[in-house]
Amino acid sequence: MSAPTHDVASEVGTSRAAARIRAAAVEIFAAKGYGATTTREIAASLGLSPGAVYPHYKTKESLLFAISLEGHDAALAGLTQADQPTAPPAVRLAATVAAYVTWHAHNHELAKVVQHELRSLSHEHFKAIAAIRRATSSVFARIIEAGDASGDFHTIDIDAATLAITSLGVDVSRWFPSNTHADPAILAERYVELSLRMVGA
Amino acid sequence: MSAPTHDVASEVGTSRAAARIRAAAVEIFAAKGYGATTTREIAASLGLSPGAVYPHYKTKESLLFAISLEGHDAALAGLTQADQPTAPPAVRLAATVAAYVTWHAHNHELAKVVQHELRSLSHEHFKAIAAIRRATSSVFARIIEAGDASGDFHTIDIDAATLAITSLGVDVSRWFPSNTHADPAILAERYVELSLRMVGA
Repeated sequence: MSAPTHDVASEVGTSRAAARIRAAAVEIFAAKGYGATTTREIAASLGLSPGAVYPHYKTKESLLFAISLEGHDAALAGLTQADQPTAPPAVRLAATVAAYVTWHAHNHELAKVVQHELRSLSHEHFKAIAAIRRATSSVFARIIEAGDASGDFHTIDIDAATLAITSLGVDVSRWFPSNTHADPAILAERYVELSLRMVGA
Repeated sequence: MSAPTHDVASEVGTSRAAARIRAAAVEIFAAKGYGATTTREIAASLGLSPGAVYPHYKTKESLLFAISLEGHDAALAGLTQADQPTAPPAVRLAATVAAYVTWHAHNHELAKVVQHELRSLSHEHFKAIAAIRRATSSVFARIIEAGDASGDFHTIDIDAATLAITSLGVDVSRWFPSNTHADPAILAERYVELSLRMVGA
């Protein structure tokens, strides 16, 4: 599922040069923050001339939007692919939590930019990203609702459980890896157990 | 409990002028990020001359350290004050989770700076902050251990439960307030319920 109003491929930029610029930008944004980075620095890190970003992204904000759109879309795609709507609710929740946690662990630099630089998007761009964020949360919310309806789960507050499960996944991008947690699969296993407990499975 | 090697008051700066500079810096750092902010801007936001920060904080990084030290120390103090070591483990966990969540909600600008700008601290300063972070986590870990020992809790993995509970609290500073959650007390109530479930209370 994509944001309803944006064609991700055309907004993000499909050329190989644009992809290299996004990858370089993610690395620098993750290391020092969007606000402290210039498009000159991004170009220089690729050995390109100072204005090399502009043919691909007219502003630094449109580059951030492309990264945010691509990142949010990939996280949501991973989630929907992991979900098997005909499986029992506990299996569905386990598969989606594992997918979401491992995505944030494997892609922690991209996820850090995508999750922590939203304040720098324009109002219109933020609205497009917010639609993908709502779609992401609602994957978890629908599974929890289905589990409560079937009697498999005994959730106290569906909205709070959805928020907490989403928040645990997102926050992985802030700290991953740590001294004690550097294996995405083991972390996902632990967070799956905790999520199942949160919904009273 | 404070970081073992730092006298918080002397490191942070006790004068009223220094406190005003920290408050102004928190607001601007939270809005646009540490890396994108200059000490001139902080001074200007207070109507002071461009160099007004320097008599109090020799570098922007020492200002960030003062803010981080004060913020981490306050969050930990709130946690230890909320804990009543003689109470039943479930009461202790409820009180400390509520204190941690409400601190991050009430102080979400300060918490955002404190939790998301650690990468910009010097190595030595980071080490001092990391000690307070370990002390914070261990408040939760000790309560969970006590609950497991007494048979009140049935935790699968104490380290993972500690990480998840801490992470939920920290991540509040990223998104609070939202359209659906703007009351720190209600949020705390929900997160207490979820935390008790995570430890199998």
